Amino acid sequence: MIVAMQEAATDEQIQQVVEHLIRMGFSVHRTTGARQTVLAAVGARVDFDTRNLEVLAGVQEVHRISAPYKLAGRSFRPQGTVIEFANGLQVGGEQVVVMAGPCSVESREQLFTIAEQISKAGARVLRGGAFKPRTSPYSFQGLGLEALKLLREAADRFDMLVISEVMEISQIAMMVPYVDILQVGARNMQNFNLLRELGKIKKPVLLKRGIAATLEELLLSAEYIMSGGNYEVILCERGIRTFETYTRNTLDISAIPIVHKLSHLPMASDPSHGTGLRDKVPPMARASVAAGADVLLIEVHHDPDRALSDGAQSLYPDQFSQLMGELRMIAPAVGRKL
Amino acid sequence: MIVAMQEAATDEQIQQVVEHLIRMGFSVHRTTGARQTVLAAVGARVDFDTRNLEVLAGVQEVHRISAPYKLAGRSFRPQGTVIEFANGLQVGGEQVVVMAGPCSVESREQLFTIAEQISKAGARVLRGGAFKPRTSPYSFQGLGLEALKLLREAADRFDMLVISEVMEISQIAMMVPYVDILQVGARNMQNFNLLRELGKIKKPVLLKRGIAATLEELLLSAEYIMSGGNYEVILCERGIRTFETYTRNTLDISAIPIVHKLSHLPMASDPSHGTGLRDKVPPMARASVAAGADVLLIEVHHDPDRALSDGAQSLYPDQFSQLMGELRMIAPAVGRKL
Amino acid sequence: MIVAMQEAATDEQIQQVVEHLIRMGFSVHRTTGARQTVLAAVGARVDFDTRNLEVLAGVQEVHRISAPYKLAGRSFRPQGTVIEFANGLQVGGEQVVVMAGPCSVESREQLFTIAEQISKAGARVLRGGAFKPRTSPYSFQGLGLEALKLLREAADRFDMLVISEVMEISQIAMMVPYVDILQVGARNMQNFNLLRELGKIKKPVLLKRGIAATLEELLLSAEYIMSGGNYEVILCERGIRTFETYTRNTLDISAIPIVHKLSHLPMASDPSHGTGLRDKVPPMARASVAAGADVLLIEVHHDPDRALSDGAQSLYPDQFSQLMGELRMIAPAVGRKL
Amino acid sequence: MIVAMQEAATDEQIQQVVEHLIRMGFSVHRTTGARQTVLAAVGARVDFDTRNLEVLAGVQEVHRISAPYKLAGRSFRPQGTVIEFANGLQVGGEQVVVMAGPCSVESREQLFTIAEQISKAGARVLRGGAFKPRTSPYSFQGLGLEALKLLREAADRFDMLVISEVMEISQIAMMVPYVDILQVGARNMQNFNLLRELGKIKKPVLLKRGIAATLEELLLSAEYIMSGGNYEVILCERGIRTFETYTRNTLDISAIPIVHKLSHLPMASDPSHGTGLRDKVPPMARASVAAGADVLLIEVHHDPDRALSDGAQSLYPDQFSQLMGELRMIAPAVGRKL
Repeated sequence: MIVAMQEAATDEQIQQVVEHLIRMGFSVHRTTGARQTVLAAVGARVDFDTRNLEVLAGVQEVHRISAPYKLAGRSFRPQGTVIEFANGLQVGGEQVVVMAGPCSVESREQLFTIAEQISKAGARVLRGGAFKPRTSPYSFQGLGLEALKLLREAADRFDMLVISEVMEISQIAMMVPYVDILQVGARNMQNFNLLRELGKIKKPVLLKRGIAATLEELLLSAEYIMSGGNYEVILCERGIRTFETYTRNTLDISAIPIVHKLSHLPMASDPSHGTGLRDKVPPMARASVAAGADVLLIEVHHDPDRALSDGAQSLYPDQFSQLMGELRMIAPAVGRKL
Repeated sequence: MIVAMQEAATDEQIQQVVEHLIRMGFSVHRTTGARQTVLAAVGARVDFDTRNLEVLAGVQEVHRISAPYKLAGRSFRPQGTVIEFANGLQVGGEQVVVMAGPCSVESREQLFTIAEQISKAGARVLRGGAFKPRTSPYSFQGLGLEALKLLREAADRFDMLVISEVMEISQIAMMVPYVDILQVGARNMQNFNLLRELGKIKKPVLLKRGIAATLEELLLSAEYIMSGGNYEVILCERGIRTFETYTRNTLDISAIPIVHKLSHLPMASDPSHGTGLRDKVPPMARASVAAGADVLLIEVHHDPDRALSDGAQSLYPDQFSQLMGELRMIAPAVGRKL
Repeated sequence: MIVAMQEAATDEQIQQVVEHLIRMGFSVHRTTGARQTVLAAVGARVDFDTRNLEVLAGVQEVHRISAPYKLAGRSFRPQGTVIEFANGLQVGGEQVVVMAGPCSVESREQLFTIAEQISKAGARVLRGGAFKPRTSPYSFQGLGLEALKLLREAADRFDMLVISEVMEISQIAMMVPYVDILQVGARNMQNFNLLRELGKIKKPVLLKRGIAATLEELLLSAEYIMSGGNYEVILCERGIRTFETYTRNTLDISAIPIVHKLSHLPMASDPSHGTGLRDKVPPMARASVAAGADVLLIEVHHDPDRALSDGAQSLYPDQFSQLMGELRMIAPAVGRKL
Repeated sequence: MIVAMQEAATDEQIQQVVEHLIRMGFSVHRTTGARQTVLAAVGARVDFDTRNLEVLAGVQEVHRISAPYKLAGRSFRPQGTVIEFANGLQVGGEQVVVMAGPCSVESREQLFTIAEQISKAGARVLRGGAFKPRTSPYSFQGLGLEALKLLREAADRFDMLVISEVMEISQIAMMVPYVDILQVGARNMQNFNLLRELGKIKKPVLLKRGIAATLEELLLSAEYIMSGGNYEVILCERGIRTFETYTRNTLDISAIPIVHKLSHLPMASDPSHGTGLRDKVPPMARASVAAGADVLLIEVHHDPDRALSDGAQSLYPDQFSQLMGELRMIAPAVGRKL
């Protein structure tokens, strides 16, 4: 940590800051320049709130030097993390993995119809929501356990894995027998109690970026899971909130190369939630692969006009097939296959 | 709902949109202008996803006319909501109510020291966190039930009420016997399962705006609680995320008069979290009262350098007393007292 | 325009709004629903400030129906605009056009070295700044007219066209003899006096989106130029300001498919300014082409460590060549070539 | 400047960074910690682009220590700047100065009617636009020189000063004889050519924050003016662009105390442009004074429904009088008068 003192800071003020740092467990190196004194504080604490120094008398500004995450940082595994599943599928390897399916599991017929079509088109993981707490208290709330069983059965039938969203600690035990990847939604990115529990299980977790979360905060949430012992975390960009109102959110494609530089974890992109509009999904899916995404999450529905949730952002199966063809052309440009 | 068709929309496209609307339960009025056809859809559904129309062929744009909330809207109670407590305190009335206390309850001595001082200065409600899931998995996590008991005891001793934050459904039953107001934090503003449970209890709820939430979304979350039968909701501005990095968040003071126009619910302001820096709390607290806030939440700590959380944004007790004096001068300018 | 009255609006209030609309030149259709009255105002004015209605008594909300731009809208030229230059180059056609070169023209040797290399790699337009008003009053301010002459000479030598930025009305006459495309920077996107003058010339204009501008505002600025008679406008995404601080700006890739839906004008992407960091330029350039960009602007410098401006975001010539190879692989996936 | 090297940085990489810094004119101090090497670079250059270091191999992050502005910084004049006018009016002193008037000067009758009323209510400076380049090319564009003459005459008649906006260098000479303060609008905050010219004149300049500008960028623009020799700069908050769409912009009240900490320059607030809606102007004006604003800019119009621009955000004269009364009650709470 670097503490730059104001030009007008008194010796007494400087001394107070030094003592404060020592009390917090840091060792301090003092440099006096022509214009101001700069203090370098070295120590092991990663959770120090720099504002505690900013408000001290005589302090001009404070910079944290070490990234506040360790396990999630690139230097922890410079070669990158590859998550391998029992069926041989690798996330973070050469293959770009496409996870697709409906927003919500609505019925056996709906799920199996979609699963067969996306499997044929090349999806390797089946997605589908089992729990749907909605903005309106009167909307469809999800099939729960029944949905999890259907997902497992459909995925097994069509040779895919299962990903589904966990929303509360109480759902974890129910989900683990049925799903291969647990998804944490954007609203739960900083639900630290939930993250702590996910750190104790032995299943990969896909962690979505909050709509107002910086990438550093996303990595800190991954650190939270990893500090519990679960190192199989996939990060996911799904759109941030900006002033532009044409789309519900702005899919931040640059998050993909930035995370790849800062972290060793695989990086996914969710253009369905990131744009919220069906006709924007294919261009943003292509852009994500061109920017280096390891994983794509795509919502597909065979009858989106009648979907019980998010139909407007679901692709028709034939749109999905066409998109997969385009992605197969793009992947080699970034040294990947699909 | 108003659906404006593209100039080039065909009769067939218009007909398909009309049929879609009727299938969704709307009745439709069609107006054909010189340049384009406009459809007005009238009906009772408040949870309709307008994107389902935006993606239909020939549609230019869709506007929802009715606000998607009813119970939280100003027209539901044009005269405004006043919440009255057993001890006679009113929130939403003439008095500006100041809720103060430490970020976290750390010990009996800490809490009683602070409670005595803020009570003397004029605070009417004691705040303090019992559960503190933190960004770092190694930080102080709160005293839990012990904190709730201490809050109740200290508040009773110094003639105040108690507000504390609820983070999970499982905490509600534990908290209800000890607190007078349940606070929902910014990260839980759209935790709809939690909101639904809070709709079933008979205690006022203070609902904080998420850092990326629009005011409409805040009112929708209030609607969620109210639809369960609990009409005693206080809304709270606590800072939004913007591009400015000097403060952690940008306290949106304009939210106060906007909410007062859109809703009948009392509106609070939290300058401590909204700025994150002690020296910015007094000016923003004054600004909040000048803009018409019904409630202020202020963090106070007698030894903030040693606070276990958020010390940098806590006022010293004498700063708090001075601020209360300033607020007493400002309140009459807006027809209030303090 | 649709004016929704409040449920509690009186007949007198409704009548006053109707009269206001008529005074403004609109004809008004009135619909009375179960809950509220809705007024549809039809007329030719595109510059009407809807806030003038929002502040009238009894008004709940106001929606503009027609897009406030006409010439820039997709329906004006449904098949899309293709700009053709004397040397046969087309912008907006099948070919993705790459415009490259240094941030600033620094010297003959610098410019010719770069121009030769990018030309070999496939760039079709040479970019370079002649005027550089900088954040600091002491920095390099550009070579002015000398730079324009060098750009023309280098472009002619290596069979490219010239694009350069115009910053003031007084520079237009000086630039027209030397450049093929006039670029308007993000800070000038709403410099309406400048836009008006650019509407009178017969050269294509590349208009960059302001860092806080919505896409509607970008199209309105294009409309400003086009209303003067110059229909050859290329729009350009170059990054918007968000809360994320890792990159200087967030390149909004979704702007590309959105503009292609709303407008017939060609759409460019500038990943150099949009990210500000060299290693982020190739992934974002690839993403732009995958999302359908018609044009790319890329900064290239043979010695970026010694560049007089923006060296950190300039590619080395061999990085540029490699990127062009990757883009050639991606373009066919979107039915383009490069 | 502090350069933190990556943990895995090689000696060669560190040496290259040191050489780069020395070549740029810095002297370098090297500290080797347990985990990484940190370089402290000391030197006089304020315009150094830190990204040039961020892209070097082995660099983890770069922090600028000294603020990039000097003349605008608080330490340049710790006691604060007070601008004194010939008639004795002080900006930055004990008095909160209210500048009011119409958005645009429309006619002699309009201006004199408004000027008389606001003068009676206590405004000390008359504002009014002479040049109005508008979003639509067909809207009213301002009276130009005629407006300046009317402003001078009305201000003299009612014992006020004149402030008006300068939009182009060519207007400066025309304006200087008629106005007392030159205003720079948000869109021109980074029009460095204009700022440079304003640094050469002997009139105070009111500089508005751009809607996407950080406060550091605002101070850098002030520095630009001051470096030319004109130290009489008033800064002004007028709303920033956020994701909230209810108001056109979000007036960032916290900018007032932040600027007062960082700079010695007087700070103004413009709630009329900052909210864009008449009924939000009084609460935000009160909040601004409560937060410590030195100056308020308020738009007033005697017949806003017929105003040629921005009528929706203009107060009626009696609203303005009432607001002035409220502000007089608030000012003493912050040790000011009005």
